[in-house]
Amino acid sequence: MSESFWRTGISQVKPGEIRISGYDIADLIRHGSFGDVVYLLFKGEWPQKGEGRLVEAILISSCEHSLAAPSTDATRLVASCGVPLPSAVAAGILAIGEFHAGAIETCARTLLEGLPDGETDLQGSATRLVEKVLARGERLLGFGHPVHHLDPRVGPLFDLAQELGLAARWVPFALEVERALQEKLKRKLPINVDGAIGALLLEMGLDWRVGKAFFVISRAAGLSAHYMEQVSRERPFKAARYDEIEYNGPSPRDLPPA
Amino acid sequence: MSESFWRTGISQVKPGEIRISGYDIADLIRHGSFGDVVYLLFKGEWPQKGEGRLVEAILISSCEHSLAAPSTDATRLVASCGVPLPSAVAAGILAIGEFHAGAIETCARTLLEGLPDGETDLQGSATRLVEKVLARGERLLGFGHPVHHLDPRVGPLFDLAQELGLAARWVPFALEVERALQEKLKRKLPINVDGAIGALLLEMGLDWRVGKAFFVISRAAGLSAHYMEQVSRERPFKAARYDEIEYNGPSPRDLPPA
Amino acid sequence: MSESFWRTGISQVKPGEIRISGYDIADLIRHGSFGDVVYLLFKGEWPQKGEGRLVEAILISSCEHSLAAPSTDATRLVASCGVPLPSAVAAGILAIGEFHAGAIETCARTLLEGLPDGETDLQGSATRLVEKVLARGERLLGFGHPVHHLDPRVGPLFDLAQELGLAARWVPFALEVERALQEKLKRKLPINVDGAIGALLLEMGLDWRVGKAFFVISRAAGLSAHYMEQVSRERPFKAARYDEIEYNGPSPRDLPPA
Amino acid sequence: MSESFWRTGISQVKPGEIRISGYDIADLIRHGSFGDVVYLLFKGEWPQKGEGRLVEAILISSCEHSLAAPSTDATRLVASCGVPLPSAVAAGILAIGEFHAGAIETCARTLLEGLPDGETDLQGSATRLVEKVLARGERLLGFGHPVHHLDPRVGPLFDLAQELGLAARWVPFALEVERALQEKLKRKLPINVDGAIGALLLEMGLDWRVGKAFFVISRAAGLSAHYMEQVSRERPFKAARYDEIEYNGPSPRDLPPA
Repeated sequence: MSESFWRTGISQVKPGEIRISGYDIADLIRHGSFGDVVYLLFKGEWPQKGEGRLVEAILISSCEHSLAAPSTDATRLVASCGVPLPSAVAAGILAIGEFHAGAIETCARTLLEGLPDGETDLQGSATRLVEKVLARGERLLGFGHPVHHLDPRVGPLFDLAQELGLAARWVPFALEVERALQEKLKRKLPINVDGAIGALLLEMGLDWRVGKAFFVISRAAGLSAHYMEQVSRERPFKAARYDEIEYNGPSPRDLPPA
Repeated sequence: MSESFWRTGISQVKPGEIRISGYDIADLIRHGSFGDVVYLLFKGEWPQKGEGRLVEAILISSCEHSLAAPSTDATRLVASCGVPLPSAVAAGILAIGEFHAGAIETCARTLLEGLPDGETDLQGSATRLVEKVLARGERLLGFGHPVHHLDPRVGPLFDLAQELGLAARWVPFALEVERALQEKLKRKLPINVDGAIGALLLEMGLDWRVGKAFFVISRAAGLSAHYMEQVSRERPFKAARYDEIEYNGPSPRDLPPA
Repeated sequence: MSESFWRTGISQVKPGEIRISGYDIADLIRHGSFGDVVYLLFKGEWPQKGEGRLVEAILISSCEHSLAAPSTDATRLVASCGVPLPSAVAAGILAIGEFHAGAIETCARTLLEGLPDGETDLQGSATRLVEKVLARGERLLGFGHPVHHLDPRVGPLFDLAQELGLAARWVPFALEVERALQEKLKRKLPINVDGAIGALLLEMGLDWRVGKAFFVISRAAGLSAHYMEQVSRERPFKAARYDEIEYNGPSPRDLPPA
Repeated sequence: MSESFWRTGISQVKPGEIRISGYDIADLIRHGSFGDVVYLLFKGEWPQKGEGRLVEAILISSCEHSLAAPSTDATRLVASCGVPLPSAVAAGILAIGEFHAGAIETCARTLLEGLPDGETDLQGSATRLVEKVLARGERLLGFGHPVHHLDPRVGPLFDLAQELGLAARWVPFALEVERALQEKLKRKLPINVDGAIGALLLEMGLDWRVGKAFFVISRAAGLSAHYMEQVSRERPFKAARYDEIEYNGPSPRDLPPA
């Protein structure tokens, strides 16, 4: 393999030495949290004001949601088939898409659209954004949740961000959008964990395109735990029973004569 | 990339030319069936006596089993999350493991164990094999099916093999094992599609380790159809409802004081 | 699981009976080709004029392209790590995306855009389509190939389609687009296998969204063969060597004082 | 879905409430580290003596190893094909197998084999274990590394474990095995990061079968960073060039006459 086939600025490996963005892995193990290092991997710089702590909080908030998630159900089904843990966890990770944690990125992008650089009128911007998005016939992703009226993960995340000085612009703007949405819809659709994480990524100066990555890293933990539980406690080959599947296709018929 | 990083004897690509095992892709498209080419890919030689036709029959037999399969359920769940088709199909393929089509390989290996080269006493060998396997406390995989008492795919597969002269040793031996198993257990556990395919791989002189490959190729078709149906007819984010999940873990509790 | 959690019209499973779109699996095994059944899975109807033969040709054309494909390289790398075949094949399938076989769907959609129902002026429509697409700053996907000037798979596919009466509209239109593109660019970008398959899906009346599915099913065969070769002939843990990776990130540095 | 189709003791979800092993998600976000929660997910109990800090150190140690890993190379290849981040990360995760991080589990199991409950002679047990494993013709996995003579991650991990009182039995035993191995082989094969993590899992009272899970969670971070770098800095469709692949299969040949 020629030197130029692979190129990277993320880390460097030499005999006896591993450096991530220039920092010695031994120093990172000794002095960093996993949240610090995740931030470093995405940002290329060491956190300046507690972003690592906020990353940890985000990872905790998203790591597990019981079986009320397609990713977890997929992992459990695959785990029941006698495959290694990474296969079952990968199957669950593949469920992370536009309709499963995708609102992190969509919400962040929408917030960016609604509050251009230098704009200081958060309230007015929020009202205009909500009107614009609804006028396009779109939903405001990141607000409302199928199970939780008030998502129990949002408060602690926003509190911590506040404490760290990481709730300066996008967190208050997201809350203004929540308010404007309520005024428009005449009912409250509180910001959910996806929307909250979207706002927090922006507060930390991260690219919103890493939204799914946060969820992947985090949920890999919960999915791994479900794999362990499935293989240690449940029977193999978990599947729908043939007589509980509704069939709505063509009636029995014969092949046409050859 | 140096010339020696990658090596293969499967196919060769040059500008304007693709050859699989030496055969021109244009000739293969014109004169072969997909079954012929699958056989060629695994065996490295062109089929001599209709093996391609038998491969096709195997691929048809395994391509679809409604939602009564973990692979299909996993594909549908993942498909509901707004991801591309290959993600959802890959998730289903990951469910193919020891307990989902794994009996193809296990059965083939067991048949090989029970009938050494040159052994011509199929009946006695089958009786001894069944006794040996049961004495080890193992099950004879490839016999019996959770849904089908008589697996509707086995008869047509064995009939075709017979017709092609590909039922000379392993098919009759598998049927002797079925008989011996019935005598021992005092109930009939008919050979199922996995066991049948295991025997047919041996008849065609293929490595039994390709068993899961046959299932992967075949079921990729059914899984793809389920992806299309899921995204065109069903709602997003298919998951277990929170109130239909049985929770059997620790009761609510507080964190210990820091 | 309640009867309504899962619904499907693709197949029905009962004890001793499996039907795909109403047809008995035993009949399909006896009388169909795999291509017929793949067509049935996507279309819901039995092929009327040899579409199954064309599906087989498509599957053959795409099944293998040596290691000159990201999907194959990914499968080989994963296969080197001591994992089951489905894991390595799934990794390769995950590489099937917008830039790897994605042109099948894009090309089909572009052809549909350029030739509305009832339009009979193929030549003029092709010229207008090429101008429109280029004016949008887009490329015409499905034309030109990084390795093959003349893609060796296209001729045999189109010949067969012609023979079967399945080259009535979209094949000639694709060739008109090829001509118009050459006139516009002053160099020939011949239609490639992806573009050809895109046109053939339309000829068969299939939804263009199944384009990646065809490639997934087909390439699963080649990827499986590569898994077998990797594990039987090569050493474990295939990876780039640390001293052949170009590092272009930050220089060694110390963590800031805590 | 009936209440009994899905069962779990990992977490419980109700409207406005998420509890992991009984602990409120809001409390976990506020007071825990991600390492604490990962420990909780696998153990079902809150860490008692700093295990969460050790889990974090393990996650940091394994998160990134440049492109000198099959998982990373697979992720980059797949990322080059125009697919979402979870697809490319899943492909990398699928490379985690017996020969890629598998030594975590194998080493832990070997240590357990060599030092039964109640045995206090670490030195003699280590000598006997090394002799036994080598006599079986096996290698002692978790010792030696293809790139690092002295793995730079082991020292800081063991130092931290010592500091936390989590180096009481399995860490010293692993070091005894290292010593015994050196005596037997007459050269030093220092314990590597996989072996170290294997020992640390045992120190924390975790099931050694979670070894790959730790690596999956950790490496998901590095793989995600590589996805971002690939799609933002590199060209699409990364693959081996056709003229750099060594072909060693059959020469060009014609199909036999039909």
